[in-house]
Amino acid sequence: MQNVSHEQIRLTGGFWREYQELNRKAIVKNVYDRFAETGRFAALKCNWREEMPNKPHIFWDSDVVKWMEGAAYLLLEEKDAELEALVDGMVADIAANQCADGYFNSYFIAVEPAKRFSGRRNHELYCLGHMIEAAIAYDKATGKRTLLDVVLRYTDLVYRVFIEEDSAKFVTPGHEEIELALLKLYAYLGEEKHLTLARFFLDRRGCNDRDEDFGNVQDERPLRELEEASGHAVRAGYLYTAMAMLARIDGDAEMKQACDRLFSDIVNRKMSITGGIGSDHKSERFSYAYDLPNSDTYNETCAAISLALFASAMQELSPDPVYADVIERVLYNGFLSGVALDGGSFFYTNPLEIDRKKYQRSTYQPICERVKVFTCSCCPPNVVRMLPSIARFAYTQDGDTLYCNQFMQGKVSLRIGGKDATLEQITDYPNDGRITFRYRGEPMTLCVRIPDWCVEYTGRTEGGYARFALKDGDSVCVELPMQVHFIEANPNVQDDAGRYAVQRGPLVYCLEEVDNGGNLRDVTLLEQSEIRVERLAGIPAPVLSIGAERRYESDRLYRLKDGRRMSFTARLIPYFAFANRGASDMLVWTMVR
Amino acid sequence: MQNVSHEQIRLTGGFWREYQELNRKAIVKNVYDRFAETGRFAALKCNWREEMPNKPHIFWDSDVVKWMEGAAYLLLEEKDAELEALVDGMVADIAANQCADGYFNSYFIAVEPAKRFSGRRNHELYCLGHMIEAAIAYDKATGKRTLLDVVLRYTDLVYRVFIEEDSAKFVTPGHEEIELALLKLYAYLGEEKHLTLARFFLDRRGCNDRDEDFGNVQDERPLRELEEASGHAVRAGYLYTAMAMLARIDGDAEMKQACDRLFSDIVNRKMSITGGIGSDHKSERFSYAYDLPNSDTYNETCAAISLALFASAMQELSPDPVYADVIERVLYNGFLSGVALDGGSFFYTNPLEIDRKKYQRSTYQPICERVKVFTCSCCPPNVVRMLPSIARFAYTQDGDTLYCNQFMQGKVSLRIGGKDATLEQITDYPNDGRITFRYRGEPMTLCVRIPDWCVEYTGRTEGGYARFALKDGDSVCVELPMQVHFIEANPNVQDDAGRYAVQRGPLVYCLEEVDNGGNLRDVTLLEQSEIRVERLAGIPAPVLSIGAERRYESDRLYRLKDGRRMSFTARLIPYFAFANRGASDMLVWTMVR
Repeated sequence: MQNVSHEQIRLTGGFWREYQELNRKAIVKNVYDRFAETGRFAALKCNWREEMPNKPHIFWDSDVVKWMEGAAYLLLEEKDAELEALVDGMVADIAANQCADGYFNSYFIAVEPAKRFSGRRNHELYCLGHMIEAAIAYDKATGKRTLLDVVLRYTDLVYRVFIEEDSAKFVTPGHEEIELALLKLYAYLGEEKHLTLARFFLDRRGCNDRDEDFGNVQDERPLRELEEASGHAVRAGYLYTAMAMLARIDGDAEMKQACDRLFSDIVNRKMSITGGIGSDHKSERFSYAYDLPNSDTYNETCAAISLALFASAMQELSPDPVYADVIERVLYNGFLSGVALDGGSFFYTNPLEIDRKKYQRSTYQPICERVKVFTCSCCPPNVVRMLPSIARFAYTQDGDTLYCNQFMQGKVSLRIGGKDATLEQITDYPNDGRITFRYRGEPMTLCVRIPDWCVEYTGRTEGGYARFALKDGDSVCVELPMQVHFIEANPNVQDDAGRYAVQRGPLVYCLEEVDNGGNLRDVTLLEQSEIRVERLAGIPAPVLSIGAERRYESDRLYRLKDGRRMSFTARLIPYFAFANRGASDMLVWTMVR
Repeated sequence: MQNVSHEQIRLTGGFWREYQELNRKAIVKNVYDRFAETGRFAALKCNWREEMPNKPHIFWDSDVVKWMEGAAYLLLEEKDAELEALVDGMVADIAANQCADGYFNSYFIAVEPAKRFSGRRNHELYCLGHMIEAAIAYDKATGKRTLLDVVLRYTDLVYRVFIEEDSAKFVTPGHEEIELALLKLYAYLGEEKHLTLARFFLDRRGCNDRDEDFGNVQDERPLRELEEASGHAVRAGYLYTAMAMLARIDGDAEMKQACDRLFSDIVNRKMSITGGIGSDHKSERFSYAYDLPNSDTYNETCAAISLALFASAMQELSPDPVYADVIERVLYNGFLSGVALDGGSFFYTNPLEIDRKKYQRSTYQPICERVKVFTCSCCPPNVVRMLPSIARFAYTQDGDTLYCNQFMQGKVSLRIGGKDATLEQITDYPNDGRITFRYRGEPMTLCVRIPDWCVEYTGRTEGGYARFALKDGDSVCVELPMQVHFIEANPNVQDDAGRYAVQRGPLVYCLEEVDNGGNLRDVTLLEQSEIRVERLAGIPAPVLSIGAERRYESDRLYRLKDGRRMSFTARLIPYFAFANRGASDMLVWTMVR
């Protein structure tokens, strides 16, 4: 069982295609400009000296190569000489400055050459991991091996230093990512050495005496014994992804069980309704079970991405729609909120409530409007590489059975019964729930996920999928009724008690002050009112109008419980679209009567 | 119009008398022992040298003299040779170490003699203020003038330094208190100089160039122009008290209007339902209007006391029951919660919600169980001096009209029509609402406050009081129906939206985990259920049993809104009694259906 690569899929229209076009038109360019201004690309020349501006950072290479990976996906889809020349220039800089022994990190080469591999917190292997992913994408897109050669030489060095010589100051990296990248490299080139190195980092984690435990890095025990998702959420998500990938490659049942426990712990106890994870802002980490604050949650955009990657690796292990349900929740909510509707600015953290007054005096002050670039700017280029490869989540193939996990209009090229086949998906999802498939090819089985939110679906399902036997020329249509649902959180979630989230299809909704006035926490939505599903200029998905009420203003601070209410029509917009119309308070969890 | 001094009132039984006995038996002794252990009394000898343990603090004198003031009130009520000897010893130490020019502060004499009056943050005048109050009480209780002589000499020095020589590094004190103390001293001795000095500190505040503004001390403009309560809440409360006292002495209408604005701002926008003030834990200060968090509010015990003092000074300016309503709210809730039921431990901050799990990861972690002594231990001795003088809040006299503001069983000695008179109050308040008065003396008018919470009172009232013409031998009885009320906060209070507080009489109630299990925020009280008012061993006021419901446990993190509920009987205890049965989560603001 294997996810169908996004290279086999071309999106032809609809929701995600529009975001891909926004990416090509705006996001890629905007992130490039911000990175250029801050010296991130110049740093690849490794010639920074004291007194010069834009001192490199230990993680800058990862920002740059994630952008390059995204650019490569664009090149793969469509020639763009100008863009290609930009990427070629960066590759040339990296290749020119790679050390004789294979090492490359623009910070350590230019700033602290003696400190190479001396600190577990230094992100070198994290940067290499992302560089491996970029190298594969660049090689596929352009046929140019330069960057792949660089990472192969660097990976050889890492193999020598960490396995053969055991000469680094640490055994496993402080920021995981290289593990999943090595497994991707193994899948791409088939070299056993890369599998061995990935396995080494995974096997030695949490069971050696040399790794400094800085409390945030999934070190508490050997990975196969992990019971709970813990620590820095982005690191955790990347690590768990690699664990699931290795479990599949090795048929490692113990590792798979650990992944099952971790996945279940996240999605049943530690995930915001938007798919955001890592609610503890103090260390960007998972908090204890059911601790899901709204206004001061962290929910880093990269963490949402890492959860989608983990779920995607899990769906290659077993055909359970729960993985695609989680991916869908992430993509349409906590991931997409990370980028502005004009593609020019980004959220690092993605709160579920904004009370701007409170932030003035709070010890934690999340940003309430997206910004163009961060000091630690991992999220924007992660968006750049995710959008052009978003179709990676759409399908999983198991022989002649194809699972359709995500609904994105487009055409997928397959091999079925040893022959080329194509499946076309036509849909306006998530605006409506009609999905049509047209098939050309040898007989196959199409399993269409019926999402967990679609409780009104009345067709026959098996294990959460609607199954169709398709032969050449067949069309099938699935209709997913899109009712507006009021969702409650587990009673153990203290912050959501007495409150409900509004969801339509995969979209979680929110109230914004700009539409509804202030005091959002005092709004009660009326369950029995007529709910209108409408379009609003500038918002790329339906908005909802729901009958609502709020209390009258009062001069008194305390008074007897008073039932009188003022009626109004509340407007709810998709969560991902919040904070696009100026500074505004916002609320997801609302009272409902 | 003047408050009747507690020296004219002897409580003879009931709620507050029991607390006075607890104070005499336990609190005074416990605070003494903790202060002795930490070297606070020894510091009065002013012989601390480097390398010795228990280095004095700049504010230690204030802790000690507040304890002395409380002890003097006990001596005033009843001879106690052992207690008097203790206080005499302290007075002797202070007198022996007073500087030749009159200065006394055990820290600056022993540790930094050169720094005298050099820093506005140094609490010297704050300590002197409390010493003045202690000296008056000691003089009254024992007839010994020693401490009064000390403070008179010290006050002369302050007058010289601050007014005549203008030689201190600051003009007005960083921590107010001396202003109200000087006005008390003026009332006690009638010396114009003390009034002049008090007026100086009040008039110069907020309008001189020499006071360092450290952002927390009511410096934003001249006092008569203040619009909003701001800054450190204890300091504010003491200052506003002095402002109201001066307005009365001087008939200063402008000052009175400022006091009216400040009082209204506090009680209509910045006061917890428990009477706690200063909700911003970052600087122990007033936050912006309606910012009244529950689990991370500050609400210092001393701030509650300072609000009662301010309201008490206001009720000498005009016969409006709102002042007594606020005093009652403070005394039975946010003040009394500051001391454990066994008198052995104290709260500095008084939250309205405890979620112990959340505190583990929160940036702000209030204590969840009372402790025996604090590094900055201003609150425990403040309790020691408030309890024996609690009757100070009970009555205000205006010629032959007596206002009964607070309900406390006891006997008050008065002068009516030029002759001695006595009024006896018999009540089991707040357990029930029946209050009987028996009068001996010349004809007078008794105005009994009908509390704001008592909406069911059907008797005739004038301006919030029930009026009775009494002559010698008369008895009257007032019955205040004590229904259980569900109270809502102003819609602008974000933290209380959709939630209600339960109040019976003056007592605000809370749910504790020890009675109701965890997940308190998920409890919904049923308004229409039968409510039982019961006694519980060890809790000195009625507890309530109210029908309630909560959700069933669930494995799912998110699910469709589900109306099924589990019924149970919730037990609510008076807020002041929370945290007396081990560590427990607690909640004031509850859902109600």
